Amino acid sequence: MGKIGVIGSGTWGTAIAVLLNNNGHQVDLWSAIPQEIEEMRSTHKHKNLPEVTLPDSIRYTADLEEAMKEKDMLVLSVPSVFVRSTARRMKEFCPQGQIIVDVAKGIEEDTLKTMTEIIQEEIPQCEPAVLSGPSHAEEVSRGLPTTCVAGSRKKRIAEAVQSAFMSPVFRVYTSPDVLGIEVGAALKNVVALAAGAADGLGYGDNTKAALITRGIAEISRLGMAMGGSFQTFAGLTGIGDLIVTCASMHSRNRRAGILIGKGYTMEEAMKEVQMVVEGVYSARAALALSKKYSVPMPIVEAVNQVLFEGKPAKDAVTDLMMRDRRIENTSLPWEE
Amino acid sequence: MGKIGVIGSGTWGTAIAVLLNNNGHQVDLWSAIPQEIEEMRSTHKHKNLPEVTLPDSIRYTADLEEAMKEKDMLVLSVPSVFVRSTARRMKEFCPQGQIIVDVAKGIEEDTLKTMTEIIQEEIPQCEPAVLSGPSHAEEVSRGLPTTCVAGSRKKRIAEAVQSAFMSPVFRVYTSPDVLGIEVGAALKNVVALAAGAADGLGYGDNTKAALITRGIAEISRLGMAMGGSFQTFAGLTGIGDLIVTCASMHSRNRRAGILIGKGYTMEEAMKEVQMVVEGVYSARAALALSKKYSVPMPIVEAVNQVLFEGKPAKDAVTDLMMRDRRIENTSLPWEE
Repeated sequence: MGKIGVIGSGTWGTAIAVLLNNNGHQVDLWSAIPQEIEEMRSTHKHKNLPEVTLPDSIRYTADLEEAMKEKDMLVLSVPSVFVRSTARRMKEFCPQGQIIVDVAKGIEEDTLKTMTEIIQEEIPQCEPAVLSGPSHAEEVSRGLPTTCVAGSRKKRIAEAVQSAFMSPVFRVYTSPDVLGIEVGAALKNVVALAAGAADGLGYGDNTKAALITRGIAEISRLGMAMGGSFQTFAGLTGIGDLIVTCASMHSRNRRAGILIGKGYTMEEAMKEVQMVVEGVYSARAALALSKKYSVPMPIVEAVNQVLFEGKPAKDAVTDLMMRDRRIENTSLPWEE
Repeated sequence: MGKIGVIGSGTWGTAIAVLLNNNGHQVDLWSAIPQEIEEMRSTHKHKNLPEVTLPDSIRYTADLEEAMKEKDMLVLSVPSVFVRSTARRMKEFCPQGQIIVDVAKGIEEDTLKTMTEIIQEEIPQCEPAVLSGPSHAEEVSRGLPTTCVAGSRKKRIAEAVQSAFMSPVFRVYTSPDVLGIEVGAALKNVVALAAGAADGLGYGDNTKAALITRGIAEISRLGMAMGGSFQTFAGLTGIGDLIVTCASMHSRNRRAGILIGKGYTMEEAMKEVQMVVEGVYSARAALALSKKYSVPMPIVEAVNQVLFEGKPAKDAVTDLMMRDRRIENTSLPWEE
């Protein structure tokens, strides 16, 4: 068993700390906010994971150097918008070859870079990896069976991450397709907004399944143009994560989408959900990527029109249904 | 607009007849049971589609020859177990080159043949095609936005089917991968049983998304060994249809799975659901195909063990989680 520092004590970072602790590792859990650390240490509770008792064997710390010192592995679990600034702070404490497993999902809006690209840029001496898949923190922390993928271009690093996380209730696959994993994870929230809007409009399971399936199809087209593999988008970190996000009321992206389908504006929906709705930012990044790589993404375009140009969600769905007649996959050959 | 005969007046056949009628076609709807025809003709209602008023412009008939006579297209919508016997009866009324669109989903247990293979065998003079996708009949009949795929190895036939069905609420894509479409459609019910069992065990969205995603992964492996394309399994007729089946209480396969997860035996679950649970038959066919093509299918094997060997569903899930550590997709290259 090893020593692991978890940098970021949101619900996902905390659920991961508990999982790794239960796997026998010595875990340090870090937060930038000393009060959060003090609260977890004294009450053994996390405010957003009320069902979980936090074990004594985890060390809760607000000292970044301590959390990073002599660790076999680090997990970076701050929100995606804080990944660059946190990585910048981490740089000085990071030894050569340190494995850093990113679990934040997003694309930086200005640079269109993925999270591991940012980490590698800010901490050139580290070995970035990624862990992603259909994994609501609430369910992982309750020990419900969950699967994820550990991604690194280097097999030994992906396998080290797999070994650290794997348990009887947490199955980990490995993959070399880091870019594919990250693009799928970042863009799924845009499709979740669309699927939520369909729910809000009172449409059924047929419509939602169509949006999910055609949504991953356009994410795949973009991701392949960027260098990812089709298989990844058909896997746990692509369609798998998208299914979980579109099915569950845990997802604030889906909840915001439902409100937009009911006629709320984007601002009203975000106010009501009272949390960061990442899909709203990802929608812009996705549209920029679609233009940069010249990949048509009709669902991403429709979401942007609804969010930022005031197009009624119902009209957006009608327009998607009435597009030109298409072949499902243009790469497959006809006999005649 | 054309003349179309719909052979089989279950919920899906009837919903299709209404859709085609609304698209301006002259539709004959046939049932083998004269009382059903009489009831639809006199009450304008179908017993399993209570919200729909059946239009006068559809001709309801129990005369197979009349239903098939001088039609631009036929739709075969009897249950999969009746496809061979119905096709055999249809042969004598079928002109050369007649397009027959199969919408039944299944694999014949004895022969391991798909529905269009059976139709082509029984009616050599016809041009079989297939229409499949995430499309609960209840929702299609209510006009909720739905997408499907029209499959034929010949482009002109797939496009003829697309033209006949496409409407502002029913979007149709085309595909040459008839085999891929049919294998995905037939085997999804096995995974739906597994996903239902996970629900019945009280597991969460993470577990279900894992079963759906790894389920389509093993169906893809089998389907590719049989000659289908990976893209098809990642599309509307594969993952799309699987998502709808696993999400909805309309699915009797999922409902039966839930009961099995709660500890019912297969016989008790089928008795309670009071309808044919196709996944139970497909599970056997899937296992036979897995052996025939030497493709490992752990979820299909687990479902068979639970259904036919009395293995507790909980033990089956645990065994799936604790299999050897794996690479998500063995075809992707590692850098080092």
